[in-house]
Amino acid sequence: MNTPVQLDDFTRQTACQVVYQIFPERFAIGNGLSSADKLAQSAYDIPGAVKRGWDESTLNQPWGQQFYGGDLDGITDKLDYLADLGVTGVYLTPVFSAPSNHKYDATDFFSIDPMFGGESALQRLITALHQRGMKLTLDAVLNHVSDQHPWFLAAQAGDTEKRDWFTFRADGSYLCWQDYGLMPELNLANPAVRDVLYRHPSSLVQHWLGQGVDNWRFDVAQDVGIPVAKEMAACVAERYPQASLLGELNGYSASWFQAGGGFHGMMNYWYRTAILAWLAGEIDAIQMNRAVADAREGYGLKGLLCSWNMLSSHDTPRLITTVGSIEKARLALLMQLTLPGVPLVYYGEEIGMEGGADPDCRRPMRWDEREWNQAQRAWVKQLISIRQANPALQYGDVTVLGDRLPGNALVFLRHTEVPGQAALVIVNLSDQPLKTRLLLPYSHWYDGVPLRDATGQTANTRVQAASVQLDIAPHGSAIYEAFEPYSNYTFFKPRNCA
Amino acid sequence: MNTPVQLDDFTRQTACQVVYQIFPERFAIGNGLSSADKLAQSAYDIPGAVKRGWDESTLNQPWGQQFYGGDLDGITDKLDYLADLGVTGVYLTPVFSAPSNHKYDATDFFSIDPMFGGESALQRLITALHQRGMKLTLDAVLNHVSDQHPWFLAAQAGDTEKRDWFTFRADGSYLCWQDYGLMPELNLANPAVRDVLYRHPSSLVQHWLGQGVDNWRFDVAQDVGIPVAKEMAACVAERYPQASLLGELNGYSASWFQAGGGFHGMMNYWYRTAILAWLAGEIDAIQMNRAVADAREGYGLKGLLCSWNMLSSHDTPRLITTVGSIEKARLALLMQLTLPGVPLVYYGEEIGMEGGADPDCRRPMRWDEREWNQAQRAWVKQLISIRQANPALQYGDVTVLGDRLPGNALVFLRHTEVPGQAALVIVNLSDQPLKTRLLLPYSHWYDGVPLRDATGQTANTRVQAASVQLDIAPHGSAIYEAFEPYSNYTFFKPRNCA
Repeated sequence: MNTPVQLDDFTRQTACQVVYQIFPERFAIGNGLSSADKLAQSAYDIPGAVKRGWDESTLNQPWGQQFYGGDLDGITDKLDYLADLGVTGVYLTPVFSAPSNHKYDATDFFSIDPMFGGESALQRLITALHQRGMKLTLDAVLNHVSDQHPWFLAAQAGDTEKRDWFTFRADGSYLCWQDYGLMPELNLANPAVRDVLYRHPSSLVQHWLGQGVDNWRFDVAQDVGIPVAKEMAACVAERYPQASLLGELNGYSASWFQAGGGFHGMMNYWYRTAILAWLAGEIDAIQMNRAVADAREGYGLKGLLCSWNMLSSHDTPRLITTVGSIEKARLALLMQLTLPGVPLVYYGEEIGMEGGADPDCRRPMRWDEREWNQAQRAWVKQLISIRQANPALQYGDVTVLGDRLPGNALVFLRHTEVPGQAALVIVNLSDQPLKTRLLLPYSHWYDGVPLRDATGQTANTRVQAASVQLDIAPHGSAIYEAFEPYSNYTFFKPRNCA
Repeated sequence: MNTPVQLDDFTRQTACQVVYQIFPERFAIGNGLSSADKLAQSAYDIPGAVKRGWDESTLNQPWGQQFYGGDLDGITDKLDYLADLGVTGVYLTPVFSAPSNHKYDATDFFSIDPMFGGESALQRLITALHQRGMKLTLDAVLNHVSDQHPWFLAAQAGDTEKRDWFTFRADGSYLCWQDYGLMPELNLANPAVRDVLYRHPSSLVQHWLGQGVDNWRFDVAQDVGIPVAKEMAACVAERYPQASLLGELNGYSASWFQAGGGFHGMMNYWYRTAILAWLAGEIDAIQMNRAVADAREGYGLKGLLCSWNMLSSHDTPRLITTVGSIEKARLALLMQLTLPGVPLVYYGEEIGMEGGADPDCRRPMRWDEREWNQAQRAWVKQLISIRQANPALQYGDVTVLGDRLPGNALVFLRHTEVPGQAALVIVNLSDQPLKTRLLLPYSHWYDGVPLRDATGQTANTRVQAASVQLDIAPHGSAIYEAFEPYSNYTFFKPRNCA
């Protein structure tokens, strides 16, 4: 058991979110337009653009210049759908003016691409989100820009000030992201670059927060680096203390949190790697369980709770395509929704969409309900509902117990400081039932407390002197929660709170 | 992962050493003399002395009084050989005046035995070492002296002051080391004893540091005790802040380090026991891995880094004789050179010398290259070179990962606070290949970072979202290090340093 951590309101509020990731070009078209209607707009009159129908394959060249017509008004139109699913906010991959469909090649950080409806569409989306109590997270790259960005063009043309915004060598070569010449790296040591990215009230980061954007997600944290993240967090906290800042790192993020004061959370690829490797049989339960504990230890509870648990994204194959079966996808989703951290649901996962690596994972969203996997959608809705009803699953600490069991099971307890507010999560990946007694090093499930599986799959059990008898079916799972069995007695007296 | 530890320069410098242990009587004879020439000198005209030829067996009585003629000038003559091997210092078993060949029975701590060339030979050795940037560690016993030491003779003769330097009982018996009457224990509670051993500028410890000796190794730490070690360390630090003090303990040394302020390091018999027991099949990988972690936890990083990793010594059988095969010796050496702590190479191990328990492990060094195991020597040189080229192997922290893997493998990561400065060490003792994914709870090997085995035995691999796919041959090993694959991009930006 970890030493109890006192959580601040910011962390609790962040940890209570369930975020839905949207690739705007592929989610929905607003104002009742078809792809053909939408793509007839002048915004798409750009060299090399290829126009597709909404139901056509994404597997054709050019990947970056094929368009289906999705936009921000399309998202606004679908907010009731998202609210029904139970998500509390959306994260959009970039929406700034850029020639590609993915818009990671921004040429202007201060305008919304006309394909997506421009600034007015953003305002309509923000208003509609906030009316429903939902939050908006945008996506920015601080480390590099497109080689067509005016800053880089000016630098190449000999603008002495802009030349120092990048890092040129004597031979004219320049630092660029993983040697892609199309992505010159910004010189983040240059104060002028920091000013325009995040330090000034009119900077990229602060400008959009001022427009009503709630949070930011930043690309390639390992390239942005800790000092920039720290300085940015300090700048933002001064004017926008509610804004959460999240870094992308496709790995283990302990050092970012140990440094303190930078990104509030990170993309938790660490948990994704563990979950998918475990489901694939590439690692045993011991590594799965330790991975959960390693993040808790290295990230700290706050950093872990503010990080995003994701199973797929616009950069990866879709869940069901990766794990190969609906059964495994269900277990993955259960882990995603119960492990500490903010669940990040990539659009379409809730209806069981398939798709391999980019661009196949960026297929247009299916809106014909006959194409939906209704069982998958019900499962996601149920898991979100269970999570949002139990503060232990939202912002409780985590104690890993599965590494002390035989078989092939992930077992962990989530628990807040409120007596009895806890959840015991078990995923049995073995072909055999998990039948064992489990000792529970937790102070507030007292002898005789009854437990029920919130998902309704596994039979009730009961705490017996700090232990519980487990009987979990092969490939089965449970989210055990306590309930009060008596009318005139409560097990969970507030006075037992430390 | 451990919380990052800020290392001081002293610890780093100590941890960068590779020490070569010499039993001076058996390493080399200086000035071009043969054993017969050398042993004709008057220094050897002592009762009971038996004179041997350099190539004769050590297995004849009397073990302690047979002489081959090795001396300090012999060592000085061989420093180019040692520098070529890559070692950075030598540790000599005792060199003070004493009748035996091993000289643990000193009769005068303030003179160098004439057999070894006296003080002038020591000065020549120190000068030659320092010219090469190498350091000298001498060996002393603080707990007891020979029963022929003048201090004890005086005490026995009734000298009232000296009588209190020992502990006599009413019946004339006295405290002595493990009941060996030949080794009366000094009364370390007596301030006068402490004065002459280490407190005064003219004391044993300080006198030789004043003569240019760099460091000390002390016998039988459990008998010397923590208060003496602490007081001595404080005295030495005042005048010789660069001197490192090492204690001998044939066990687990956590309490010495937890007490703080005493010996900087200890002989790490703990790791030796684990390595040899694991290679012998007496323990499984789980104990091997936990042993590495236990020392890290109990010794602390600084204590562990300043301790000596040894596989053999003048008190044990030689490595290859113990493990029984060249293949196992190679794995043992790989562990010795990559685990945290200063590698201590006992003379002759680098050429594969054999030998059982004392006196067989004290055979004269072989200088005819035709007798060398050239592959073993190349392996030791390569491992030293790998270690000395990677600060993570020299003074990085250690995170144990092998206890979460199936099979029979030791796996650990060494890592400094400099982004990317790390090494993943794997020893697979199984008859089966080790094929598994390994999650890496380390923040600075980012997605896509390529890894190569510094020993060149195992194929390259690549970090994939905080994990690496392992494929290590049966009885195989790897020391994976990252490298930069790009020309205009660096993975390891200094700004990621916390």
